[in-house]
Amino acid sequence: MQSATKPAHGSGIDVLFPMLPNFLSYVLSFVYVGIYWNNHHHLLHAAGHVSGGVLWSNLNLLFWLSLFPISTGWMGENHFEPLPTALYGVVLFMAAVAYHILQSSIMATDGCSSVLREAIGADWKGKLSMALYLAAIGLSFVFHWAAQAIYVGVALIWLVPDKRIERAVNEN
Amino acid sequence: MQSATKPAHGSGIDVLFPMLPNFLSYVLSFVYVGIYWNNHHHLLHAAGHVSGGVLWSNLNLLFWLSLFPISTGWMGENHFEPLPTALYGVVLFMAAVAYHILQSSIMATDGCSSVLREAIGADWKGKLSMALYLAAIGLSFVFHWAAQAIYVGVALIWLVPDKRIERAVNEN
Amino acid sequence: MQSATKPAHGSGIDVLFPMLPNFLSYVLSFVYVGIYWNNHHHLLHAAGHVSGGVLWSNLNLLFWLSLFPISTGWMGENHFEPLPTALYGVVLFMAAVAYHILQSSIMATDGCSSVLREAIGADWKGKLSMALYLAAIGLSFVFHWAAQAIYVGVALIWLVPDKRIERAVNEN
Amino acid sequence: MQSATKPAHGSGIDVLFPMLPNFLSYVLSFVYVGIYWNNHHHLLHAAGHVSGGVLWSNLNLLFWLSLFPISTGWMGENHFEPLPTALYGVVLFMAAVAYHILQSSIMATDGCSSVLREAIGADWKGKLSMALYLAAIGLSFVFHWAAQAIYVGVALIWLVPDKRIERAVNEN
Repeated sequence: MQSATKPAHGSGIDVLFPMLPNFLSYVLSFVYVGIYWNNHHHLLHAAGHVSGGVLWSNLNLLFWLSLFPISTGWMGENHFEPLPTALYGVVLFMAAVAYHILQSSIMATDGCSSVLREAIGADWKGKLSMALYLAAIGLSFVFHWAAQAIYVGVALIWLVPDKRIERAVNEN
Repeated sequence: MQSATKPAHGSGIDVLFPMLPNFLSYVLSFVYVGIYWNNHHHLLHAAGHVSGGVLWSNLNLLFWLSLFPISTGWMGENHFEPLPTALYGVVLFMAAVAYHILQSSIMATDGCSSVLREAIGADWKGKLSMALYLAAIGLSFVFHWAAQAIYVGVALIWLVPDKRIERAVNEN
Repeated sequence: MQSATKPAHGSGIDVLFPMLPNFLSYVLSFVYVGIYWNNHHHLLHAAGHVSGGVLWSNLNLLFWLSLFPISTGWMGENHFEPLPTALYGVVLFMAAVAYHILQSSIMATDGCSSVLREAIGADWKGKLSMALYLAAIGLSFVFHWAAQAIYVGVALIWLVPDKRIERAVNEN
Repeated sequence: MQSATKPAHGSGIDVLFPMLPNFLSYVLSFVYVGIYWNNHHHLLHAAGHVSGGVLWSNLNLLFWLSLFPISTGWMGENHFEPLPTALYGVVLFMAAVAYHILQSSIMATDGCSSVLREAIGADWKGKLSMALYLAAIGLSFVFHWAAQAIYVGVALIWLVPDKRIERAVNEN
């Protein structure tokens, strides 16, 4: 993960203030990467076997996560304007889809007895997040602050680590 | 792995469009690094013993992979012009040679009973890739889009992970 | 960890001299990151079980450590002026608080029998450090060299690795 | 490890040529980092126990290795002029000293029966390298190409991985 931005030249409070949007979008993306990291930890812990398909699904997720720094920087530097805000949502949406594919490919590898399958259930949190990202992408062009609010809101939904998996693993 | 490029200044669609070549070459290189990562995973999984020679072959591969970001960036920023396209091919070719050397050095360390040896066989995929890269390097100066098509084509050949090794390991 | 700065253009001694503040703040931050790395090693070694709360406390610490390069660079480039010096202290203070939270969350997870709990005791080193950072933040605006001296002094207190934990672990 | 340099703007052979010194110093440093990586691998493999002192010696080595990219870049961008060449030698020398300290601290931790102690013996390779680096630092200001030749020569001495340790470990 990169640091927020390059060090500013000058040393007064007036140099720090314009960096605020950059800092806020850095914090948001740090939280998102943290959420993926932690849930990914629990997900792979629950995986019984790593197949070629799982490796590729994992790389697909990594690809979308690798676009976080640039889309974060673009949104921050342009003060949350419509297009960068929408693009940030596209990257969040694609990462959520990639996570869903990884989850499914781990469950497919482990067969019917998968611990994960029971733990995830209908995965309403995953589906709700994707729907909210799509809504935010559309909203970016109308009320872009509403899109930002949705990004923060979805992060809050996930900040609670995925107890479902943790619990199911401990029971087995 | 670095992100595609630095965030663009400005927030309109006209800022995104010129970044397309950069993005496409980033995607291509991400796929290539992913291919090496996955096959490398299977390769080292099949290795019985890590000798000094294997460590050095591994560093040699890492050297050529470390040149991916700069050759990718140079090709993307110059819109796939002849020389950068040829140089990208040289790096791909050298990485393929380095992978071949690593494979051979692992097989030499493990002796005749090597699981890997049976799995790889004549390694036609490796040899075909090297031949295609050489062809693409030459073609860069005539039809540079043909060279690009070859780079994409070879990536597609390898996108299927090396089932040969995976299968052979599982049988043992 | 990033290298100190970008390579300077020019090759005389006059190019090196202006880089001295950058280099000194790089050394200071390297030592701090090293202190966290080593104590973190001992801390997690003593942890019996990693819960969701521990993962999040760990990410919180990582967030503040991820701000080291930019705050270091800002302080170095502005020759230890008041505001950048105070901000550097804020980041050090927040990292110390985050470390304290991580320590507490590991102890809470392990219950009363925690090896760590006995080892840490009243954690006077942690509390003293936080108090000194707060003092340095205030001093930055009056005598900013005094703040720098405190940052160096606290690093020296911690340079001795946390024998308390090492000893307690070896006894068990 | 960073890539050689930033992508050049322009796409002709005339853009590549001025990058040659940068590329050559990148190759030299890659080889040096590879040497440290491989020998470090063998060194830690031979270590029986990791104490606080070993962790700190390891961080000290890491500090000097972290200065490789900037000193490499400075030497490459200034076409191997005297001062950057001497400074590169200082970093190489300090890294060699740090490696020697790490080695000694591992041997001190393991006591008299240390496998490593027998394997290293009088460590003439380590001592010779340090003497040659010191000679090269002095020579930089007289014949800077002689200093470069020494850097390449010492790398060649070490390119053969440390068979002494590998052999001693296998015998036990």
